[in-house]
Amino acid sequence: MAPITNGRILFNSIPSGYPEPGKTTIYDTSQTIDIDNAPLNGGVLVKTLVLSVDPYMRGRMRAPEVKSYAPAFILGEPTNGHGVGVVLRSELQGFKKGDHIYGRFAHQEYCILKSTDDIQVIENTHNLPWSAYIGVAGMPGQTAYMAWKEYSKAKKGEIVFVSAGAGPVGSLVAQLAKLDGLKVIASAGSPEKVKFMKDIGVDVAFNYKTENTAEILAKEGPVDVYWDNVGGPTLDAALEAAAVNARFIMCGTISGYNGEPAINKNIHQIFAKSLTLSGFLVGRLIPKYRTEFYDTVPGLVASGEIRYSEDVTKGLNKLGEALLSVQKGSNRGKAVVWVADE
Amino acid sequence: MAPITNGRILFNSIPSGYPEPGKTTIYDTSQTIDIDNAPLNGGVLVKTLVLSVDPYMRGRMRAPEVKSYAPAFILGEPTNGHGVGVVLRSELQGFKKGDHIYGRFAHQEYCILKSTDDIQVIENTHNLPWSAYIGVAGMPGQTAYMAWKEYSKAKKGEIVFVSAGAGPVGSLVAQLAKLDGLKVIASAGSPEKVKFMKDIGVDVAFNYKTENTAEILAKEGPVDVYWDNVGGPTLDAALEAAAVNARFIMCGTISGYNGEPAINKNIHQIFAKSLTLSGFLVGRLIPKYRTEFYDTVPGLVASGEIRYSEDVTKGLNKLGEALLSVQKGSNRGKAVVWVADE
Repeated sequence: MAPITNGRILFNSIPSGYPEPGKTTIYDTSQTIDIDNAPLNGGVLVKTLVLSVDPYMRGRMRAPEVKSYAPAFILGEPTNGHGVGVVLRSELQGFKKGDHIYGRFAHQEYCILKSTDDIQVIENTHNLPWSAYIGVAGMPGQTAYMAWKEYSKAKKGEIVFVSAGAGPVGSLVAQLAKLDGLKVIASAGSPEKVKFMKDIGVDVAFNYKTENTAEILAKEGPVDVYWDNVGGPTLDAALEAAAVNARFIMCGTISGYNGEPAINKNIHQIFAKSLTLSGFLVGRLIPKYRTEFYDTVPGLVASGEIRYSEDVTKGLNKLGEALLSVQKGSNRGKAVVWVADE
Repeated sequence: MAPITNGRILFNSIPSGYPEPGKTTIYDTSQTIDIDNAPLNGGVLVKTLVLSVDPYMRGRMRAPEVKSYAPAFILGEPTNGHGVGVVLRSELQGFKKGDHIYGRFAHQEYCILKSTDDIQVIENTHNLPWSAYIGVAGMPGQTAYMAWKEYSKAKKGEIVFVSAGAGPVGSLVAQLAKLDGLKVIASAGSPEKVKFMKDIGVDVAFNYKTENTAEILAKEGPVDVYWDNVGGPTLDAALEAAAVNARFIMCGTISGYNGEPAINKNIHQIFAKSLTLSGFLVGRLIPKYRTEFYDTVPGLVASGEIRYSEDVTKGLNKLGEALLSVQKGSNRGKAVVWVADE
């Protein structure tokens, strides 16, 4: 077969506020690939099926000299992130044609991967859709599951508050908390998200844009566990409403990703209420919980005990729009970019 | 003996900024006591010798309807806090004339105490000055010792940063950290305090008013353990300079006690660096560590391995000035009000 276009998303400029599709990232069609003959040099040729778009990616759109927990995207190079693809050819031990793999891919239609560090073959025992493996059964699900197990110290009858409770992380946290017998309060930013939270069993689901978080927590709390996806004023409200000895699981601060950093003024509550705040990055928990996670979550999803929602964007060329949507919170579920059928 | 004046400090008005001696608190001489005949009703009559003045007291100068971790002072009633006194008469089991007791006293020259909940007889095995029992061997020392043992997870060769490192809490933390083999960075707000910190073995002692905390931490860090007595910009600098997996011990936020609450803008570092922030109140650690503390700290003080400094104010009538001095940081050591000789 003749070489075909290998569409790519390139990091084109560093945004100061929200990322701008077509400027921050551009869709590039200048590269071709001969999928039958391109040399693999011991690697594996993968056709990308679905790509994950996640809030943390905003932090990678920065100048390389600024240090942070995830490496900066490189200007002029493809962006990258988690995805699922299918193996077309392989010279890599443990990977064969037809295998579906989950891992960290460049944002392009075809990739040649040479290291097994960031990829794994999916054993799809429960026959889930492939996109589940970048959501509830992928990095966001791992984030929720592993940190809930590690840090929540949840006891039946306690009260948890989850911000961004309709997202792939927050919605799994809410459902794990329900399974553990907690009362769940959760916030999100649209009526559709509030409806989804109610559908998955959240006891007190509210729209933080139209209701007052502090008032709801004062009425429905005090909060024994707070899962923070957003930072800023929501974190301050949770600090105010915290029970003595509450646990705060610090997962992200999206309220501060696209402009000035989030500001907090209730930090004194940490000592006043003997709170414990645990920050974490999921990569550091994976070695401890990987087996337990894959033994547990896909089965709960297959049985319907755990539910998830997706917002699918069709076409790699629209990935920039999906990135922006996640930063603005206008997505309606886990942001998935559908790149190709098999 | 005829009744004598029982001088008292009364809580007179709620301050909006710094407390004002003579307005926030007043010295009152309208009450008398007959120390030979006043009925004890099963209690113990104590003559106050020394009283402790501590930063947290500012939080008690508030309206009673505002909830917080320590009860509000009551307008028109004496303020109170830790002190050491000598028993003049006793009808209380376990307390006899001549015993020296440590506990929570009303700020007055003589008290009749009826409950043993808040008082204990001092077994002064090491013959320390009585004032040590409201400082390095009292509540501030317990705060430092117990939380350092509980939360620091300190390992030899690590780096700790201590704010308010010349105070009774911070200076003991610094010395415990040196005994554990850590490199100690500590800040305070005057040349005299910097000199004291150097004298007790702090490796990098600096004046945060004349030097740039962030620059010093960038050069001398990264910080594995941060002991926060102040909050605000110093906490933000420590968040910026934290090592991955650092432990933050949240003891107080004096930068926000006397006006607007302290503001923070680096809270995102908690998840980015997998930090753990542990807030605590010493009262919740005392049951676990009380015996170990009294078995350890007075001996280390007596042997000179642990040093402390005091700023003694003479006369109960000057307690308001001592309160203000602690809030402003113009005290030169543990603030002690000397009320009377025995």
